[in-house]
Amino acid sequence: MNCVCVLGAGYMGSAISFPLSDNVNDVHLWGTWLDEWILDGCGQGLHPKLKNAIPDNVSLFYAGELKEAIEDAECLIIAVSSEGFIPVFEKLLGEMEEGCPLFCLTKGFVSVFEEVHRISQVAHRMFLQRFPGEDFQWVSVGGPSKAVELSKRVPTSAVFGMNSSVMAHFSQMFSTEYYFVNRCDDVCGVELCSAFKNVYAIGLGIYDGLYGEKRENYAHNLKSILFNQSVREMALIVEHAGGKRETAFDLSGVGDLFVTASSGRNRRYGEYLGKHFPPNDAYRLMKEEGEIAEGYHAVRYGMDFIRSLESAPFGKLPLFEMLFRIIVQNRDVEDELHRFLKVLSKQ
Amino acid sequence: MNCVCVLGAGYMGSAISFPLSDNVNDVHLWGTWLDEWILDGCGQGLHPKLKNAIPDNVSLFYAGELKEAIEDAECLIIAVSSEGFIPVFEKLLGEMEEGCPLFCLTKGFVSVFEEVHRISQVAHRMFLQRFPGEDFQWVSVGGPSKAVELSKRVPTSAVFGMNSSVMAHFSQMFSTEYYFVNRCDDVCGVELCSAFKNVYAIGLGIYDGLYGEKRENYAHNLKSILFNQSVREMALIVEHAGGKRETAFDLSGVGDLFVTASSGRNRRYGEYLGKHFPPNDAYRLMKEEGEIAEGYHAVRYGMDFIRSLESAPFGKLPLFEMLFRIIVQNRDVEDELHRFLKVLSKQ
Repeated sequence: MNCVCVLGAGYMGSAISFPLSDNVNDVHLWGTWLDEWILDGCGQGLHPKLKNAIPDNVSLFYAGELKEAIEDAECLIIAVSSEGFIPVFEKLLGEMEEGCPLFCLTKGFVSVFEEVHRISQVAHRMFLQRFPGEDFQWVSVGGPSKAVELSKRVPTSAVFGMNSSVMAHFSQMFSTEYYFVNRCDDVCGVELCSAFKNVYAIGLGIYDGLYGEKRENYAHNLKSILFNQSVREMALIVEHAGGKRETAFDLSGVGDLFVTASSGRNRRYGEYLGKHFPPNDAYRLMKEEGEIAEGYHAVRYGMDFIRSLESAPFGKLPLFEMLFRIIVQNRDVEDELHRFLKVLSKQ
Repeated sequence: MNCVCVLGAGYMGSAISFPLSDNVNDVHLWGTWLDEWILDGCGQGLHPKLKNAIPDNVSLFYAGELKEAIEDAECLIIAVSSEGFIPVFEKLLGEMEEGCPLFCLTKGFVSVFEEVHRISQVAHRMFLQRFPGEDFQWVSVGGPSKAVELSKRVPTSAVFGMNSSVMAHFSQMFSTEYYFVNRCDDVCGVELCSAFKNVYAIGLGIYDGLYGEKRENYAHNLKSILFNQSVREMALIVEHAGGKRETAFDLSGVGDLFVTASSGRNRRYGEYLGKHFPPNDAYRLMKEEGEIAEGYHAVRYGMDFIRSLESAPFGKLPLFEMLFRIIVQNRDVEDELHRFLKVLSKQ
């Protein structure tokens, strides 16, 4: 492979450039209008978020240089934030001259005309409007991958949910001795787990916020109930949305939840809630430090998404409902935890 | 229910007496010949392992009083160590006058004539020799349950793998507002996960022993690979042994691994290995403090068990094989971790 283009120069876009740069001659890293300062930093030798120098064969492109960035690219890798997805994808389609394999690292949901959808559903529709009749070749990337670690070339396992076996060929350009590509055909499952695990990680953070420091109340049995229930509910959501249960039991579900619950922004956001910070205040507080707890949005979007399913598994998602009540309806965390446990005890 | 008898007054036997005592008038707690000091302590007001007083309606029985202990019991709950299982069960069958529902909290394997079996397989055979033609009613209990926490009535979720729907009725006597009984029909899966999770928890302990303190090398991505691979391999083992994959993805697999990997004896044993203690020395060191790392035995027995399967999933269990080489063959932990990662990178 000679040239690929990564869209989005934040944590994940920049980190994925590392394994790509080991296989591809020329990696183009394009920054959105919000990434200018990052590209400036990279140009001076250090990625300001990753605190690491970008590999030599990665060339930087500013927001206005999208056409040049994608011109020679044989594949496009989208790694912008979920809020940025639609405007960037629209711009991208405008600049593309023909269809091209797409890899998506953006996690979460998108909202179109007040309706919440998986990213690939919306991307597919937009793609066909621009290129009627052409093949939509898509991979959703999931799995436990902290960007800073990946940029240090730490062993990382990812799952590539692909809608066409053609993509298996292209996915080879990501494979290195430290980046393990696991392929599956469940785009829906990978996407949903990647989004919902951020919500469930908040739950584990809440628990540690509530009890982590009061050692005498800390209970592994109870924390494990939360972890296990998160996995159960992710499998149920995936199944009801037309994906495969097993996807939730592998890297994008169990594996990614394990990492996200151990550390990171969503977990930290949960800890604030466990310490009785109001949900909106905690979100704002973190945002002021430049940290976005994606689960804060995913719990709202996730609820809308679940409600839109033909057979919504309501009544079977007591943990998700607990988190919705805490984050969106501002209910008391301890009351809600007890209520959740009461539901479990009666099942 | 008027009377049940728990066999084994160690951690789990004593802890399970708490939810039982909330439902059953009279709980008999029988100690083996190794438990005398524990019963003495309980008699003086405090269980010396749980550091908690046993409930008032729990009566204590010493090793020589087995007949009296089981006389009026409508169900028996076996919670001795896996090494103690066969001698205790033999003694028990000798004292029993007729078949009776059996609940087993003992985890691990038993070896008979140099062959390794699941506990329920051996128990079934022994039962039929004593009571030919009678119904063998059995439940294997699994799931994340730290005994000390259960004895503090902390919310705890268990899975009851039962071979007969009759046992659903009897399992109600365990259910309380803090002890959640989840029923399934996969005895094999529950037993195997409960045994193998101790081996895999050692793996996570090894990782923390190796890198936990050197913060700059610590990688969540890599630790998550170990957790995820543990779940994958448990599912594969269960499937090849005739159980259900889904069992590994729920409480006795994912849930119990989460707890066991966070804290406890097997995890601690792994940490010693990660700090380059020789496997036998580390085992002895812990044993001298009265702590048995069950995974140390389970890795040997587990290997024999896997080898005895008609279709052994060899080549697909790189993490289990890594742990076997480290613990049984005394190989270097870092070399083996790199070897394991190499295998993954080529899959």
